Amino acid sequence: MLPFKTLITIDESSTIAVYRQIADCLIVLITDGVIQPGTFLPSTREMAALLDKHRNTIVAAYEDLITQDWIETLPRVGIRVSIHLPLIKPRSFQEGGKNQTYSSPAKFNFKHIPGPEEQNFQLKRTSIIVNDGFPDADLAPFDSMLREYRKLMQGSSLKVLMSLKDFGGTKALKNSTVNFLNDSRGLNISTENLLITRGAQMAIYLAAGMILKPGDHVLVSDPSYYIADEVFRQMGANLIRIPVDEHGMDIEEVENALKSTKISLLYIIPHHHHPTTVTMSQQRRILLLELIRSYQLPVIEDDYDYDFHYSNSPVLPLASSAHDSNVLYIGSFTKLLAPSCRIGYLIGPANFITQATNLKRLIDLRGDTMMEEALSVIIDSGELDRHIKKSKKVYNERCDQASLMIADRLAHAVDFTKPQGGLALWLKFKATYPLGEVIAKARTSGLLFTGATYYEGAAQKHNGMRFGFASLKESEMQRAVDILRKITI
Amino acid sequence: MLPFKTLITIDESSTIAVYRQIADCLIVLITDGVIQPGTFLPSTREMAALLDKHRNTIVAAYEDLITQDWIETLPRVGIRVSIHLPLIKPRSFQEGGKNQTYSSPAKFNFKHIPGPEEQNFQLKRTSIIVNDGFPDADLAPFDSMLREYRKLMQGSSLKVLMSLKDFGGTKALKNSTVNFLNDSRGLNISTENLLITRGAQMAIYLAAGMILKPGDHVLVSDPSYYIADEVFRQMGANLIRIPVDEHGMDIEEVENALKSTKISLLYIIPHHHHPTTVTMSQQRRILLLELIRSYQLPVIEDDYDYDFHYSNSPVLPLASSAHDSNVLYIGSFTKLLAPSCRIGYLIGPANFITQATNLKRLIDLRGDTMMEEALSVIIDSGELDRHIKKSKKVYNERCDQASLMIADRLAHAVDFTKPQGGLALWLKFKATYPLGEVIAKARTSGLLFTGATYYEGAAQKHNGMRFGFASLKESEMQRAVDILRKITI
Repeated sequence: MLPFKTLITIDESSTIAVYRQIADCLIVLITDGVIQPGTFLPSTREMAALLDKHRNTIVAAYEDLITQDWIETLPRVGIRVSIHLPLIKPRSFQEGGKNQTYSSPAKFNFKHIPGPEEQNFQLKRTSIIVNDGFPDADLAPFDSMLREYRKLMQGSSLKVLMSLKDFGGTKALKNSTVNFLNDSRGLNISTENLLITRGAQMAIYLAAGMILKPGDHVLVSDPSYYIADEVFRQMGANLIRIPVDEHGMDIEEVENALKSTKISLLYIIPHHHHPTTVTMSQQRRILLLELIRSYQLPVIEDDYDYDFHYSNSPVLPLASSAHDSNVLYIGSFTKLLAPSCRIGYLIGPANFITQATNLKRLIDLRGDTMMEEALSVIIDSGELDRHIKKSKKVYNERCDQASLMIADRLAHAVDFTKPQGGLALWLKFKATYPLGEVIAKARTSGLLFTGATYYEGAAQKHNGMRFGFASLKESEMQRAVDILRKITI
Repeated sequence: MLPFKTLITIDESSTIAVYRQIADCLIVLITDGVIQPGTFLPSTREMAALLDKHRNTIVAAYEDLITQDWIETLPRVGIRVSIHLPLIKPRSFQEGGKNQTYSSPAKFNFKHIPGPEEQNFQLKRTSIIVNDGFPDADLAPFDSMLREYRKLMQGSSLKVLMSLKDFGGTKALKNSTVNFLNDSRGLNISTENLLITRGAQMAIYLAAGMILKPGDHVLVSDPSYYIADEVFRQMGANLIRIPVDEHGMDIEEVENALKSTKISLLYIIPHHHHPTTVTMSQQRRILLLELIRSYQLPVIEDDYDYDFHYSNSPVLPLASSAHDSNVLYIGSFTKLLAPSCRIGYLIGPANFITQATNLKRLIDLRGDTMMEEALSVIIDSGELDRHIKKSKKVYNERCDQASLMIADRLAHAVDFTKPQGGLALWLKFKATYPLGEVIAKARTSGLLFTGATYYEGAAQKHNGMRFGFASLKESEMQRAVDILRKITI
């Protein structure tokens, strides 16, 4: 007889019932070929004695295996492994009868995609995390969200909404978003121009995925938002980089590229450019719109930080000017709420949005109905506008504070221009301070930079990094700047 | 002088400040070439009179335009449109000076992707919606989620978590999920084998996206989950359909396909197959595992409904047997919670999961940290297990009720086999009842089927439809069956 006592391992502390553990072990022994089809098993009484368990436990295990066709009862003869099972070549016994199902790496072919290294940073109470421009979660209107969640739970509409197919956002949120965008951004859209997504990132992915084919050429800025770069690359596109100066993307270079190459897409962040925070000048904006119309050039306009503009009114997006339905406009509520509330949007011509909604469904079948409905109420009640106003005041102050501190204490190492808006500064370190070293030293001093535009690609040569001031209290900012000073002086 | 009174339209009821409306209209007039660079504008006093507004309003509008470089002041001369702006060919005046920015369809090339038609179904209080197998939102543990949300908001850890990079799920949820899956499914995985996604749909998209190239061949069942079919098609793959009978996918046909064609991926739903609800026999399971090992065949095992099994213990997944790191295992908490809580997972070898996590980041930068942390607590406290037990009892009863009613009242029109588990029945209508007609007639009687496996593709020939019983109270079920009887008798 097989050494069942050894082969069948039972963990009394497990949350799995013992009879299930026994049945599972027997299945593994059968599928591994250790017990062949037709082999008789010990009777329930014998097995109970072997394993030192109650007989009823073994009866339950065997019954389970019988209903699943693993074993069969021959009346007055015994219980055997089903002879209908195919014969299996026995393989070596495995430790404890358990398969190490994923112990070896995958050997089939799959893509390799660059990404950040997971950082083993020991977070302490004194650690400071500087991101690349997140809102302050302490300001987030979580309370209002929870209040709306509770109301929704008590009503009956949520259940119906969750039963219906999702066409890229609930109707209520689509209506609220259309009003919000038309009012704040001078757009002139209706719900058929709008798709609700999981943050701006998914909107970029969907817009590009609808347009790009392998071998296509995409214009991006230099430097550009590195995760968008990687999206286009993964779709097989070739990136053509256009320099960015203090007036934004160089439009003459865009025109040169259009003249010499078939361009399938332009990705641009005209307002608070990522990472450099530059806002494009009106002159270039007008020239670009001319190019868009005359070349009928599809454009993704990423306007992730529109709502936080301090020095004057924000600059209206390209999407609100005449672009002949070529500009796809992307933004997000995430920066207005909290990093976990990932609701973004993609705006475009209706025929495009219908198809993008179908693509979205293949990736993400439904949105978060509850969050979408709650956000809709918060927009419609004017609460979002009040929240933006309040946050803008705080962030404006923090922008001033950070700019003053850095100008005062880090001028020897860092160049930067105070931005007109947004949630981050773009710090260009002088060549004598290679960014990799600065970041590594900062880490050992308890300062972690998570907004890594530096870990790869074209931004590296700029030796620049985003310093997200918006989520830092003044004392945290002070400590972060102190650490940077200490390691650069 | 231009007819500013006509060109500048002001909406007093708008939430946009009047000065902003005036500034925005002027920008449009400039970018549209109606007002050319160098043109002098009326003085603030004149403009105030023209538009019948207070002079301070015009001053504010002009100041806004000056800081944005649209116009410039020549001391003692006047205010003109900046001569640094490029000359623009005037285009025809647009109604009210507003651009219909998205009034024309997109003319650039983009993909066309099949999807459902948005249905203009007039929901009434008496309407019944039958989905393709959703959980009942009335049972969802929303209260517990809100309780945990509130606790998280009061703590300090959430802010830190939201500041860190997301590596496919919070650490807490990864740990909880690993324990939950190892306990319930006989897996033997650690967190490096796990990626948290937005529902099972995103897991399918990511797994397939990592593996498939245009022209690849994928084995799917006939019929299969139609949205997965579409995912593979969008990636340029060719589908080879393998018949499904009452024992599951025909493994001999799988072997034939493997012998004759280079197969890049097998997509299979061995447990409560979608749409047919069949569970694969042990014999086929063992044969399939043999094929997987000998051909080193990458497999996506979709186990979306594992936790609801009524007749005996659920059948362990392929992923828990010896598959030589070839099986990617997919599931979701959505069916355990509510349709809006879209948290799913992809399980695979560690080297594959690292790369899939990088791909996920390109599509969906971060998960919902708050929901992930709350779910983790609910798993760890045993509350999820209790919730599953409770729901399973309800759904088991509803499965019995629905099966009895349909056998009793619809036998003339419908064939079906009561499933061993899951949240839906697979109703095969006899040929004399074409499904399209049945569904259309049902709609006019107030019965809406949203689980449309029928609207396209290979499933159509099966004339079958999923009947999601789990979210229906007995009286609703009764009414749904009555309507189906009335339109088929």
